Amino acid sequence: MGIQREGAPVVVIVGAGFGGLKAARALRQAPVRVVLVDRQNHHLFQPLLYQVASATLSPADIAAPIRHILRNQRNAEVVLAEVTSVDLEDRQVGLANGHALSYDFLILAAGSRSSYFGRDDWAKQAPGLKTLEDALDIRRRFLLAFECAEQEEDPEIRREWLTFVIVGGGATGVELAGTLKEMARLSFPREFRRIRTDRARVILVEAGSGILANFGLGLSENALQGLERIGVEVRIGQPITDLEARAVILGEERIPARTVIWAAGVSAVPLGASLNVPLDRQGRVLVQPDLSLPGQPEVFVIGDLAAFSHGPAGLLPGVAPVAVQQGDCAAANIQASLREMPRQVFRYRDKGSMATLGRGRAVARLGRFSLTGYPAWLAWLFVHLMLLVDFRSRVFVFFEWLWAYVTTQPRARLILGDRAQGLDMESSLKG
Amino acid sequence: MGIQREGAPVVVIVGAGFGGLKAARALRQAPVRVVLVDRQNHHLFQPLLYQVASATLSPADIAAPIRHILRNQRNAEVVLAEVTSVDLEDRQVGLANGHALSYDFLILAAGSRSSYFGRDDWAKQAPGLKTLEDALDIRRRFLLAFECAEQEEDPEIRREWLTFVIVGGGATGVELAGTLKEMARLSFPREFRRIRTDRARVILVEAGSGILANFGLGLSENALQGLERIGVEVRIGQPITDLEARAVILGEERIPARTVIWAAGVSAVPLGASLNVPLDRQGRVLVQPDLSLPGQPEVFVIGDLAAFSHGPAGLLPGVAPVAVQQGDCAAANIQASLREMPRQVFRYRDKGSMATLGRGRAVARLGRFSLTGYPAWLAWLFVHLMLLVDFRSRVFVFFEWLWAYVTTQPRARLILGDRAQGLDMESSLKG
Repeated sequence: MGIQREGAPVVVIVGAGFGGLKAARALRQAPVRVVLVDRQNHHLFQPLLYQVASATLSPADIAAPIRHILRNQRNAEVVLAEVTSVDLEDRQVGLANGHALSYDFLILAAGSRSSYFGRDDWAKQAPGLKTLEDALDIRRRFLLAFECAEQEEDPEIRREWLTFVIVGGGATGVELAGTLKEMARLSFPREFRRIRTDRARVILVEAGSGILANFGLGLSENALQGLERIGVEVRIGQPITDLEARAVILGEERIPARTVIWAAGVSAVPLGASLNVPLDRQGRVLVQPDLSLPGQPEVFVIGDLAAFSHGPAGLLPGVAPVAVQQGDCAAANIQASLREMPRQVFRYRDKGSMATLGRGRAVARLGRFSLTGYPAWLAWLFVHLMLLVDFRSRVFVFFEWLWAYVTTQPRARLILGDRAQGLDMESSLKG
Repeated sequence: MGIQREGAPVVVIVGAGFGGLKAARALRQAPVRVVLVDRQNHHLFQPLLYQVASATLSPADIAAPIRHILRNQRNAEVVLAEVTSVDLEDRQVGLANGHALSYDFLILAAGSRSSYFGRDDWAKQAPGLKTLEDALDIRRRFLLAFECAEQEEDPEIRREWLTFVIVGGGATGVELAGTLKEMARLSFPREFRRIRTDRARVILVEAGSGILANFGLGLSENALQGLERIGVEVRIGQPITDLEARAVILGEERIPARTVIWAAGVSAVPLGASLNVPLDRQGRVLVQPDLSLPGQPEVFVIGDLAAFSHGPAGLLPGVAPVAVQQGDCAAANIQASLREMPRQVFRYRDKGSMATLGRGRAVARLGRFSLTGYPAWLAWLFVHLMLLVDFRSRVFVFFEWLWAYVTTQPRARLILGDRAQGLDMESSLKG
């Protein structure tokens, strides 16, 4: 590749998620050359990923080409490549294609991935939800399970197909459980002739003492009731102890189920480990108050890849607002260095969190205020539409939601993918 | 499976394309049980498939779950399965999963697939455009080629990446060539920093004496001029003689190109051959004037799988209107048999054909009338919107088109797919 220096200092940003993209945009007016590297060609609006999994939205509704987003930022260029190593001494990042990119400043924003707490063998059976491919995989498994149930004569196996276990009671697990249950309850019934899709079981398993733990006790209780009202079975304080081929094991209990979705945890991508700096238990890089690496003021780590434990909030969660604010802060600190000004210390302004519980129901914590039910759901709709990166996505997602709400028939119920991929379900459909 | 007879005669329909779906709907009021078998869960609006390949539309815009389309037809059920054989004597179709479906009447509407005229080894390098997976594969190759070009230092290899060859000057090839060239010319230029995307070459290769041969000489000429005006290079009367790893060979000429798309021909699916009845050269089943098999009045073959050569029109082309009208006719003839009435002979009412040539330009033959330019394009828009199976798709596709037309920025420009799939381009991106 050989990015020529051409005078201006080069800022390499690894990862075009919320943090990396925000940093790139914040450097729009800076006298630097921005090189944004990502292994995907698109920025993904991850908070709505579960709606691709549940067949409400299409990938194009929540993802936009990174090049397109930055097309008018003349000091930025985009490189589609996977970063595999960082050479702190020579100030270079190595790419999977063998090339290297030199930097004057580096922002690592490569994010996290699903973590199975040492049981990586569970990954194949219980896919996580981090990428568009994950979402399409889950959509495919969910839709295929009903097809398999419809064709199955054995009532026991049929029940296995109609049992869906979602592991992890954070926002992703809660939103997925609510939306999948409502699909089975509202969208499918008239389409199948042999099964009662409204009797499909959706079981949400949470090892801790409550779902949506970081929302506070009141909202956690409210969310639990909201899910149970639409028929989701919630198991609190029950860690998953084993996964069998056709069952989930919770201690003494064995739940026969053919579809398991993993929303229980994430860990930082392995890139952090290649830095040879101290990491926390989830593999996140311990950063300085200004988000830089200890002893490497030109290298910043932000978002899910960073463990920021300074300040009153304690260790920050891996959510989009943290990444966005850190992207801003890292960009500001790079500009401060260029002007030989003092750097700022990162402070997180927590604006709250929200999660939907299906049709017309949500919980929201906004500063000191709490919302539940329909008002929370409207707030959720509004906030998420406004946060979508592209105006065009906003318009289309609004109409998709309006359509799905009025008709209860979301549009994207397609089973896609190469038949040769050999999902277990399909071999089951064959035998 | 074991479909119970429950008195009413069973009509098994194989394939939920235009012909099979129309036949199922036409039997809505008939005293029969309809079993519609398809290996996909969705009906695909194939005439717009090239717009998924060119990243304008999402799969959900042009495909709808078969179950959803037939949800209110109480005498119909849908089976997701692949039919592998037909036992004419025992009146059963065999499924890939080992089960069998018994029928009283059978409609075979399993369609066609890309055909490489005996050079099946070309399939991997030059994908055809028959399924949504094909369209996403082509989209991926097209978008990745620009990414590779942007990263390439060697000007010769860069030119190879920026050369796209489309083989076959029928409607699919023409529409794909026009839309891909306009993407490169109008949508991409501001997004890349190192390449001139508007200089990308799109070459349409046609072995015969003109493109859109079945539109007549005047429109064929007009289409040629229309494509050349936007910069598509059209090669007439030049059959492709070989495909090399990085080049297309046309007799003496060698065109270096890394992306080749196959739109040159189709042949019937192999199911026809398993019937042990006379086939034509493309593997299509020769049918009686009433669309039934010779000696098997309870078995009908329609659409791309059928060779219908009776009547003044000669051998009918493999297009949607033929399939739809044949689906209607087969359904009517089944009902005639049930009522012991005489069957009707199939007569094709040719309402015309149309093809777009990019933005605001098309050719259309409507009965004895011809349209070109903007009026033809408006007619094309209107007709295709009206033909979309679902009202909901119609609304969303209209807005997608409006958006793409006004902004020149189609929305679905995502490179999706498992990285492990190992497309050649990606290994190239790595080395």
